[in-house]
Amino acid sequence: MTTTHIDNVNVATKANVYFDGKCVSHSFTEADGSKKSIGVILPATLTFNTGAPEIMECVAGSCEYKLDGTNVWVKSSEGEKFSVPGNSKFQIRVTEGFEAYHYICSFV
Amino acid sequence: MTTTHIDNVNVATKANVYFDGKCVSHSFTEADGSKKSIGVILPATLTFNTGAPEIMECVAGSCEYKLDGTNVWVKSSEGEKFSVPGNSKFQIRVTEGFEAYHYICSFV
Repeated sequence: MTTTHIDNVNVATKANVYFDGKCVSHSFTEADGSKKSIGVILPATLTFNTGAPEIMECVAGSCEYKLDGTNVWVKSSEGEKFSVPGNSKFQIRVTEGFEAYHYICSFV
Repeated sequence: MTTTHIDNVNVATKANVYFDGKCVSHSFTEADGSKKSIGVILPATLTFNTGAPEIMECVAGSCEYKLDGTNVWVKSSEGEKFSVPGNSKFQIRVTEGFEAYHYICSFV
């Protein structure tokens, strides 16, 4: 099921702009103190580095991702999640002409 | 004073992407029911149409704006606000090489 809204959060008003705007997110803190972000990735192939392990949940559109050390691109669509190990990296690609990838990023 | 965070909101997880990503925002509802959005405008000159009157508050970076029916570009920087009449339009420009314009948009 897709998480369309999240209630009772404290949101940072300044956006995080990465890769010349190909990825834009806003950070927020949930009532229980957990830190997350909501964001969007426009058509591009981008490499992200992780500190803490992350869970990426797709809330609209889709992407393909490739974890470090693998050669497999895996599709992630609305309502689906994938996990990324800490101190690692992963690639996300969104194909030109397709809808952007909208996500919630949680740190675990 | 700059509004860096807003507490106790219900945020929509899917971004609003306008003008091929030159403007990206996330909508949210405050505890009192007021509807707003936080967003960012990358270097570009964009024209927006209003339904309800809007207040644009700059939370980082800066822009110049021009209201419909005027010939004057006015600068708006961090901590500053400007109002736009309803059923109108306005232009925003962010100069290439400058920081993006980060804003809170309130409907009044």
